[in-house]
Amino acid sequence: MSLKRRSRLSLEEYKSGVLSGDRVGLSRAITLVESTLDSDNELAAKLIDQVYQYTGNSFRIGITGVPGVGKSTFIEAFGRHIIDSDKKLAVLTVDPSSQKTGGSILGDKTRMEKLSRSSQAFIRPSPSGDALGGVAQKTRETMLLCEAAGYDYILIETVGVGQSETAVKNMVDFFLLLMLAGAGDELQGIKKGIMEMADAIAINKADGDNVKNANRAKSEYENALHLFPANENGWLPKVKTCSALNDDGLPSILDLLTEFNIQQNESGYFDQNRKEQAIHWMHQTIHYYLKQNFYKSPEIIEKLAKFEDLVRKGNKHSVQAARTLLNHYFK
Amino acid sequence: MSLKRRSRLSLEEYKSGVLSGDRVGLSRAITLVESTLDSDNELAAKLIDQVYQYTGNSFRIGITGVPGVGKSTFIEAFGRHIIDSDKKLAVLTVDPSSQKTGGSILGDKTRMEKLSRSSQAFIRPSPSGDALGGVAQKTRETMLLCEAAGYDYILIETVGVGQSETAVKNMVDFFLLLMLAGAGDELQGIKKGIMEMADAIAINKADGDNVKNANRAKSEYENALHLFPANENGWLPKVKTCSALNDDGLPSILDLLTEFNIQQNESGYFDQNRKEQAIHWMHQTIHYYLKQNFYKSPEIIEKLAKFEDLVRKGNKHSVQAARTLLNHYFK
Repeated sequence: MSLKRRSRLSLEEYKSGVLSGDRVGLSRAITLVESTLDSDNELAAKLIDQVYQYTGNSFRIGITGVPGVGKSTFIEAFGRHIIDSDKKLAVLTVDPSSQKTGGSILGDKTRMEKLSRSSQAFIRPSPSGDALGGVAQKTRETMLLCEAAGYDYILIETVGVGQSETAVKNMVDFFLLLMLAGAGDELQGIKKGIMEMADAIAINKADGDNVKNANRAKSEYENALHLFPANENGWLPKVKTCSALNDDGLPSILDLLTEFNIQQNESGYFDQNRKEQAIHWMHQTIHYYLKQNFYKSPEIIEKLAKFEDLVRKGNKHSVQAARTLLNHYFK
Repeated sequence: MSLKRRSRLSLEEYKSGVLSGDRVGLSRAITLVESTLDSDNELAAKLIDQVYQYTGNSFRIGITGVPGVGKSTFIEAFGRHIIDSDKKLAVLTVDPSSQKTGGSILGDKTRMEKLSRSSQAFIRPSPSGDALGGVAQKTRETMLLCEAAGYDYILIETVGVGQSETAVKNMVDFFLLLMLAGAGDELQGIKKGIMEMADAIAINKADGDNVKNANRAKSEYENALHLFPANENGWLPKVKTCSALNDDGLPSILDLLTEFNIQQNESGYFDQNRKEQAIHWMHQTIHYYLKQNFYKSPEIIEKLAKFEDLVRKGNKHSVQAARTLLNHYFK
């Protein structure tokens, strides 16, 4: 307990740590945000409130693809191009598996060794979270801290097999889906619905014998995307091929991001989307804490498993089970 | 007030009304379920608990498609085939527009005149609801009442432009998407993600000059569906053409449903899916009432619009706004 107290900084120290742009200061503040202690949560909320005026100036990019698609290599190579254009890049990951099994599909920052050595890059692995949407909640707050610390691009990486993608889609400006050609599309295991979220699909590993396959996949995906309706922002999703390994095709993807940014700013949709996301996020935060309060209350912890079992076995109707639990909670 | 009391029946009367299979008795019970009065909600919960043992025996089908695709005509014609096979059919609609504007995209049961005259059919328009998922919540409970009343098929119709489809997907066994050929696919306005939920796509209005287009669209959708991963239930989504107007191709779709039903029962996935849905539904019900309790509390009603405005204008951070509102609620 005394150790805990010593390691916690004051609000002012956290704030200056973030605003100085120092990576250690930023890391400490993120650790505070990720804490599950109520007192830490309160301090974190104050910190974010204090730095809020310095946020919002980055380009927020969601990036997803299943394991094996080469996400680390892609981000490592793509990140170099961002850094070479004299911009600062933060890479955050949302990996729901890391809290369940202790292991992580996305691994940690050792995956992006070169990038992590650059002083213009900041790489932060997935926070621990809970089943109530806590991972996404923490990632949103971490993104704000990175913005306050002066990062120009925020890449939020997800693993493409869970429910995190919808949450991430709701906090980014641009959503990039990485795919492979010739791997048997039905085996790529990308979760249903994700392809339709994409502002662009990048077909990776378009190198060597695979170039032809990649180009064919490009046409196929372009045709498939035509079957979907236009995005409400007026942007038509694009398909690109690239080889992160050979550093091929990446500037073209960076150009695409810039094109998107300009078009969306001119149409006013960039700001409109951010405003809608802010309202959405306020309500998501409310829902998150309402659920947390419920599922963490002692009466519910004691009874939940029993009721789930009754419902699963068909011995109790879902609605009745829910109402009984709610009565215990509200009484 | 006295009028209200007179029009409410006793629990026993509601129960026998439902179990008798009488359409008037069923209608009254649904009105009770749809009520927004707390006392009615309590009685409705008791009613569902009492009839719960008689539920679960129907085949639950979600059906969606944008306005203009011919949903009413399709359901009218398709419904005849179900009735002709000596089964009872209930048609429920979930139309989020009906509560916002007072108008309804889906209209009401006058759309399905022939079907509504059959004693084997029961057609119920969209309940009024609220922004908290109330429409879907009520529809789930209404579905149970229809099952207790002996309906063999429950068709749950949505309009394909809102968020109801995910909720409906989570309460049905089979999800059918109606599409058109040659209408400019990008103009069909089907909400992103819906195509990936479909267990089958039916291309309607495959008649006259449109047959060739419909067949071409069929191939295109089949190709597009191949790009998606297999459903977790092992079922490969099928594409069919039909003309509801000419009563063409509908038995083939009904056969498809039967094939699905047999396959899913043999694999055990039918029951497994129902069990997962029941657990899901219990938690959804909990979340619904937690949110309702929050958003209906006087302090929140008084303050919410102001906080949304602050967030929209960027004067307050979403998380801080959420926490302030939560503090008011929990204090």
